[in-house]
Parts: sequence; structure tokens; C-alpha cells
Amino acid sequence: MSLAEAREALARANRIIALEGVLDAFGHVSMRHPSDPGRYLLSRSRGPELVQPEDVHEFTLDSQIVKPIKERLYSERVIHGEIYKARPEVMAVCHHHAPSMLPFCVTGMKMKPLNHLGATMGAQVPVWDSRDEFGNTNLLVAKPEEGASLARALGPYWTVLMRRHGATVAGRSLEELTFRTIYTARNAAAQIQAELLGAGLEPLNAEEIELGGNSNLMPGPVMRAWEYWSVRLDKAEGNRPPRKPKGPAAKQSAPKRKTVAKRKKSKRGR
Amino acid sequence: MSLAEAREALARANRIIALEGVLDAFGHVSMRHPSDPGRYLLSRSRGPELVQPEDVHEFTLDSQIVKPIKERLYSERVIHGEIYKARPEVMAVCHHHAPSMLPFCVTGMKMKPLNHLGATMGAQVPVWDSRDEFGNTNLLVAKPEEGASLARALGPYWTVLMRRHGATVAGRSLEELTFRTIYTARNAAAQIQAELLGAGLEPLNAEEIELGGNSNLMPGPVMRAWEYWSVRLDKAEGNRPPRKPKGPAAKQSAPKRKTVAKRKKSKRGR
Amino acid sequence: MSLAEAREALARANRIIALEGVLDAFGHVSMRHPSDPGRYLLSRSRGPELVQPEDVHEFTLDSQIVKPIKERLYSERVIHGEIYKARPEVMAVCHHHAPSMLPFCVTGMKMKPLNHLGATMGAQVPVWDSRDEFGNTNLLVAKPEEGASLARALGPYWTVLMRRHGATVAGRSLEELTFRTIYTARNAAAQIQAELLGAGLEPLNAEEIELGGNSNLMPGPVMRAWEYWSVRLDKAEGNRPPRKPKGPAAKQSAPKRKTVAKRKKSKRGR
Amino acid sequence: MSLAEAREALARANRIIALEGVLDAFGHVSMRHPSDPGRYLLSRSRGPELVQPEDVHEFTLDSQIVKPIKERLYSERVIHGEIYKARPEVMAVCHHHAPSMLPFCVTGMKMKPLNHLGATMGAQVPVWDSRDEFGNTNLLVAKPEEGASLARALGPYWTVLMRRHGATVAGRSLEELTFRTIYTARNAAAQIQAELLGAGLEPLNAEEIELGGNSNLMPGPVMRAWEYWSVRLDKAEGNRPPRKPKGPAAKQSAPKRKTVAKRKKSKRGR
Repeated sequence: MSLAEAREALARANRIIALEGVLDAFGHVSMRHPSDPGRYLLSRSRGPELVQPEDVHEFTLDSQIVKPIKERLYSERVIHGEIYKARPEVMAVCHHHAPSMLPFCVTGMKMKPLNHLGATMGAQVPVWDSRDEFGNTNLLVAKPEEGASLARALGPYWTVLMRRHGATVAGRSLEELTFRTIYTARNAAAQIQAELLGAGLEPLNAEEIELGGNSNLMPGPVMRAWEYWSVRLDKAEGNRPPRKPKGPAAKQSAPKRKTVAKRKKSKRGR
Repeated sequence: MSLAEAREALARANRIIALEGVLDAFGHVSMRHPSDPGRYLLSRSRGPELVQPEDVHEFTLDSQIVKPIKERLYSERVIHGEIYKARPEVMAVCHHHAPSMLPFCVTGMKMKPLNHLGATMGAQVPVWDSRDEFGNTNLLVAKPEEGASLARALGPYWTVLMRRHGATVAGRSLEELTFRTIYTARNAAAQIQAELLGAGLEPLNAEEIELGGNSNLMPGPVMRAWEYWSVRLDKAEGNRPPRKPKGPAAKQSAPKRKTVAKRKKSKRGR
Repeated sequence: MSLAEAREALARANRIIALEGVLDAFGHVSMRHPSDPGRYLLSRSRGPELVQPEDVHEFTLDSQIVKPIKERLYSERVIHGEIYKARPEVMAVCHHHAPSMLPFCVTGMKMKPLNHLGATMGAQVPVWDSRDEFGNTNLLVAKPEEGASLARALGPYWTVLMRRHGATVAGRSLEELTFRTIYTARNAAAQIQAELLGAGLEPLNAEEIELGGNSNLMPGPVMRAWEYWSVRLDKAEGNRPPRKPKGPAAKQSAPKRKTVAKRKKSKRGR
Repeated sequence: MSLAEAREALARANRIIALEGVLDAFGHVSMRHPSDPGRYLLSRSRGPELVQPEDVHEFTLDSQIVKPIKERLYSERVIHGEIYKARPEVMAVCHHHAPSMLPFCVTGMKMKPLNHLGATMGAQVPVWDSRDEFGNTNLLVAKPEEGASLARALGPYWTVLMRRHGATVAGRSLEELTFRTIYTARNAAAQIQAELLGAGLEPLNAEEIELGGNSNLMPGPVMRAWEYWSVRLDKAEGNRPPRKPKGPAAKQSAPKRKTVAKRKKSKRGR
């Protein structure tokens, strides 16, 4: 993947996760640089729904911008940098304050996968509390040591709740990250309803979480979801998808289809 | 109904049920082949909101594709094939993970019709648990024996809940299936609220379920709802319905009206 | 108001109440004939969101169509006819199954106004149960005696809940009906949340309901809300409102403004 | 800021807060006159989603219109005038009936910030009850003494709940007001869910509220949110934002960018 393709894909992931209601004016999505694992890509400071490829800049793993710009930067960049440092296999990170997950950030309620889609949140969802190491703060994760502490709390898992703040999610690809971020937030919304019904909630067990989560993170389901959200984004942005895939208008979504094709490993869908 | 009309209608049902919030990136809708009861029609693997007539292919009741294609197929096709085998009167099937029904999939709470529209879910909504026969799995219903087990659990009813997974719905026509799928999900959302109010929920009794459900599944209400959802889909897809039914633009929705007319048996509406 | 204007306004009220989420594929809105109090206007059977002026027909108070048509009619017309018979001051009626009110239809929970807008539901919201007089039915109110029974339950009030079914709302004008229907449904949604918080819900008292409800049903607030919903409908239907009220496009909304002007009695808004 | 720019910005704030679901047919937003602190700007009486610059008029702090017009005025203008009198640092006020905050208006439940974004509601959210001083009324705050009483209840804080009515919010700028209004309503919705989970809700403590709230009300976050909501509004109104900021279409959003630039004080984002 070229740097230009990466910036295009990252901008799109920002806008998809915003359109699906997980990000709003705040939060951000990054990806590791496609050819230099010692750098990552992140937008300048603006609402994720507005991010375009030209907003995306390169950062070192110490979260310094490579080519300084005049515009503002996200102050919480260290969330991304410190996770990339700690987890070489992580290729993309999203930090958000999804409304459906805030109730879990301020109570002792554990997040539980209700089905295989929710199981992509990971075997456990650890909780990080900024008070434990840093006392009373403005809640922002702006210092390197705060980012490093959060990364330690995430440990080997994929989603970490941040007390009185939000959540941070990691993925082995931008598309996996998008899938996990959205379905974990959806699962949380349904779990609240299920907890309230109070009739003995029984979520997936450990083996089901592993089997179900892994099978959903295969290229087939991940790219199927990515195509779906991507077309929804195109529609919401006024770029109507072509009805006939062979017509001239079809070129618009060509890159996306190509990505699906390149990653396709088996014919086994869902 | 010709095969071409069937593919058009099935693609439309996929997109309607997605637009109405029951399907998202996952789930699928099938219909029995209009002239060969030993086959069914189903899209290749893609988000239901994206399904176009050219995505729809023919499958045997053993869920093998009749003319192999290069693209991925849904892995859970056996849900459809095994139900068509077991229930000759079933002409359409939808498998989904509606957010409003997931709480019922992980608790012991029974689904209850709150009014005549919800009564179309059927006299009972049985629950199938993949663990009972197959132990811990990835939750997907991908093997013929898993599909057959689910079809047995559905029995003579129309909606079956799948523990820690979602639901599967059957209908005697594509339009009836669409009606039942959407109104059952809507009823579930309202039931959660009603259960929480906790002031003595009293749903329809058995005779009211039968009378109310049946009266809603007459051609009149079913086609009225189908026309409504179909026009909403056209609007969402940028195909505005004509304001004057006699203008030249009216041809756009002509097939739909024709279908309504053909099925019309009585003038008794609602 | 001419008959043509009445049909236009009634079609618009149908589409407004649908757009605002109270009506869906089912339910209907009627108004008394503008010059003949012994007749009322109602659409032929179709989803309210689709109703156009040419769909609106005249009915006697016995709910017989004046000029028979080929298309289907709503089977529950008697809800409208019997209320118009019993209540000469009622000029418009809406029957619906709003999701936020269904929980009140199946539990013993009383509806309570949370603020002055909700107070337009009326001093009391009586409950009608079809089982009391008619035993187990399909829940539809299709027979004259069923409609008359419902009208008796409504009594001198403005909103009646129908057990295991939905609700029926009356108004002294189409615009008042639209206001009461929408704000009563919105109030119900908020009340459910308030009841669940369980920290001593204290609604308006009887005098506040009367004062607050009446002040909201003055022409000013009612027409302000009607203009708002009407412009939202225009936007949703692709008829963008003019930005400059004096431009040529402004004619599109001229009838609406005129109505506002005609009814304006004081400058006291809100 | 010129008066023309102020009217444009105020109209936009009205439409933004409506689009984001806090205002509906009712409620209103005002700002202090940009060059005369003894006056404020407010729309004539119409739904906030419809307010255009030409609807905005000047009022004295006694809530009298400076140049009388024929159209109706909001009857609750004194909410604005009395707060501007009592609080010289307040530059903008919003009165609303957000659905997510009504449950707090009728119960004894206190509003609690779940994260730093919610902390912008202020250190405390006092509650005003019209019954305390004025007994049973129609709930409207229409008399100067009612407005003054509400302003006293607000005291030195930024958000005041009005029992059985709604809420009023103040800000040191239009953009700060918009931020606080929207995020307080969003926090309320999430708090209801968190309270229901009932597993020991622990919100921000006093120091975190101060630190987190203040850091969010710096120009960076406030203008980032304003740009985001402003572009969403443009999209909803059919004015698509330019994809390439240097293209000719970019002029459309030029005023907004200029405002961001002018206020920008540091590069520290979030």
C-alpha cells in the first residue's frame, strides 16, 4: 500500500466510524505507516467526520510530527504512539467516547459479548483509571507517561475502557480496527438492554469468544463490513454507488473493490 | 413471477430490511426459486444493503451454488437450505442479528407480542442453542447438520431465536417475510421498554395472537407495508417517488403497484 | 378552507406525523369535511407517509365512502366516524401505534405529562380494552359498535390508549391534532426514562396541565410547530425551503405562511 | 464581529443545536449584541431549525424589541434578558427541552458528568422550580420576575434545570454555549443508561470536573466542535462542504474557517 493509498484509507476510516455514530466531534483514528513501522499516520486536529487525505500527517512513535504544520494537532497523540511502541503487531488505533460505552466507563459493569460479532472486542476488556497513577487530571491522555500507562493497561488485548473518559481500540489492520470499534460499541448498546431485562444474561463463554471473534476477523467478514460501511459513507457524502458495477460510474468505488479482491483468501463467506 | 422479477424483488427485500435497521453488514435474505421448489435464490456474500439483482444466484436445497462464481458466498447458506427442505410452504427466509432482539438471545426473557402487528411473529418463538448439540463453536451455522438442527427448532413456527447469535425468520412470501421480520424486531424494542416499566405487562393472549397475526398477514396489510418500505427505499436511494401518479415519472414505481393490484383480493384494508 | 386545500393539508399531516416517527406503515389521520360537518376526509388504504391529496376521499359519519373507488380502504375507518359523531368539536383524528406508547398499552402505567408540551395530551388519558365488550378479537376496530365503544372511552378527553393495540388522538384542528399526537408520543418516550430513574417522578399537577396544555394549544405555538414540521417534511421530500423568503422559490411554501397569518391572533409567542 | 456576522452566526447556532436533536419546534438561542452589551439578539418566534439571519432582531435587556415588527415574538424572551442582566460575562443563552434532560426535570436525580466532555455542564447544575415563587402556572417563563428568579437560580453556574419544563444554558461565547448545550444533553442520555446499570456509578470528582471542563472550553476544542457541527449542518441543508479546500467551492465555508483562525491561540488540540 502506498502512502497516498494509506492516507485515503485512513481518512475514510475516520469518516466511517463517525458516520456509524461511534466518533463525534472528538476522538481520532490512526494507522501505522505502511512502509516505516517507526512512524504512524494521524490527522491534524479536526472532527473525524471531516478528515480528508490531505489532513493526514506522519508522526514518530514519540508522537512528534515529522514535518511541522501550522494547524493544531490532537493533544492525545500519545495514545497512538505508545500503543504502536508497545505492540508491534498493532497496525491501527481508534480512541473514542461512544455513547453506548460511557455507562461502562463509570460503573463496575463488565463488557460482555452477546454474539460472535461482539466477540471481536477480545477475550477481555481491561479498564484503565487515570487516577491510579496520575491522580486528578483533566482526563486527557496527553503526556507520554500517560499514554504508556494506558498501553500497559491494554496489555495483550484489543479494547481498553478508560474510566470517566471513553475507550481505545487496536487492530491488526485498519479494516479490522473499524470492525472491532463499531461492533464493540453496538454490542455495548445491546448489552445495556440485556442487563436491564435482568433475566439471567448468559454471554459467550471463553472458547466461543475465541472461536467466534477469530472467525469474524478473517479477511472475508472484515472486508465485507468495510465495503458496506464504505458504500454507506459514499451515499451519505452524496457519492451514490453505481447500480450497475460495469457502468462508467463504477470507477468511483474501484479502489475499494480492488482491496477486497487482493485480500480475498477463500470463498468461505458468512 | 419470472426469475428476473424474483431477483429484483429479493434484492429489494435485502435492502429494505437493511434500511429499516434489522440487517447491517451481516445477515441475509433468500427466497425459494419461483418455478423450481428444489432451489432457492440468495445473494453472493455482501452486506444486504448493497445487494443488487445481479448478485443473486441459484442454490440447491443442499446449499450448493448451481453455477459456481468467483466471488465469496455466505457461509451460513444452510440456514436457508435446511428450512426450505423441512418446510415446503416456506417461500422466503431471513437471518439477522437485530439489535433489539439480541437481549432476548442472551437472557431467558420470552418474546411477547404487544399488539396485532407484533403478533405476526407467530404463536411461539422457540429458542435454539448451538451448544446443545454442537458444544462450543464459532456460533456460525455453517454445516448442514447445524442448519437442520436449527430448522427442527423452528418446527412449525415462523421465528426462531438463536442463543448468543441472532434470529431466523420464515415467510410464505417475500413480502410476508419482510413484514414479520421488521415488525417482530420493532415489537422486541418496545417489549424491552414495557418489561422495564414493570407494571404488569399483559400481552395478547393465544386467540388474539392467532386472530391479530393472521389478519395482518392478509395480502392487504402485507402489500401496504411493502409499498411503504419500497417507497422509503427509493427515496433513500435517491429515486424519488412520483408526486403525481399519472405523470411520466410514475412509471418508476409501476411494477410495485402492479404487484399490489395482482394480489388484491378484497377492499378491506386497515 | 376549500376542499382542495383540506385534502392538501390532510395529506401533509399524514406525511408529517409519519416523518416524525409516530406513524409507520399503519395508522391514519382524518379531518372533518371543511364545509359539511356530516362528512370526513380520509385517505384510501396506504402508508401515511405516502398519502397525496388525490388519495383523500369523502366519507359519511357512518364511515361509508361517498364515491366508491376501486382501491382498498382502511378497515378501521369507524374509529374516525364514531368520534366525529360523538364529539362535534373534534375536527381531526389520528390513530397510531407509536413505539413509545406501546409500553403503556400493555402495562398498567399511566401516562403523565413531564412538561407543558406533554400537557397537550389532556387532563387524563383513558384506556380502552377491546376485550371488555368484545372479547378476543383481531384487535382491529372495524365494526361500528367497536368504534362507538372506543369513542365512549375517549369521553371528553383528547387521547385514548387502546390496550394491546395503540392510541387514538383527537383535535379541534388538524394542526392541533398534529401537535398533540407528536408531543404526546415524545412525552411518553421521556416518561419511560424518567420512570426508570425511579427517583420520585413528579409530573405536572392538574392546574399546571390545564394552564400549560391550553397555552400550548393557542394558535401561536400550534402554527409554529406546524411550520417547523412542514419545512422538515419539505426538506425530507427534496423540496428545499427557500433561504430568502422573497425569492421566486418562496411560493412553494406560500399556502403555509398564509395559514399562519390568517390564524395569528396575538404577537405573544413563546 | 459585525452585526451581520453575529446574526449569521446566531442563526447558524439555532440550526446546529436543532439538527443535533436538542431543540425541536420550541426553544431558542440568543447572543449578546456584539458591540452593545445592553442589548441582545434573538430570532422572531419560529422553530430554531428554520432561523435565518433576517429573522434575528435586537432586544433591550428588558426584553423589548428595539424596532417593532409585525411577526410574533418568543414569549419567553425574559429568560435571555434577565440572565444577560445578572451575568455580564454571559454572551449567549439557550433555552431548550432536550428529551434526554426531561427525566432529570421531573425526578430528584442529579446530573453527573460522565467524562470531560460532560464536565462542561459546570461544577453544579442547580434546579429551579416555578412553583416555589409563582405557584401553579402554565410553566412558561414570560414575566420579568420569572426570568429574574430563574437567573438567580442559575447563580454563578452554566446550566440550570427547570422543573417540569426543560433547561437553560449559558456561555461566554456562542460556540462555547453550543458545545455545552449539546454535550450536556448527550451526557444526560448516557447517564440515564449508566444509572440503570446500577453498578456503582462514579462520575468525575470536583477537581476533575474543573480541570476537564475547563480544558474542553479552550478555543481549540470549542472551535473544533463548531466546525464539525457547522459542516454537518451544511450537509443536511444541501450545501456540501468542498472536498478540496483550495477549489472554488471552498469559498462557501470561508467565514467559518476564518473564525477558527482568528480564535486560534495554541497548537495544542486534543
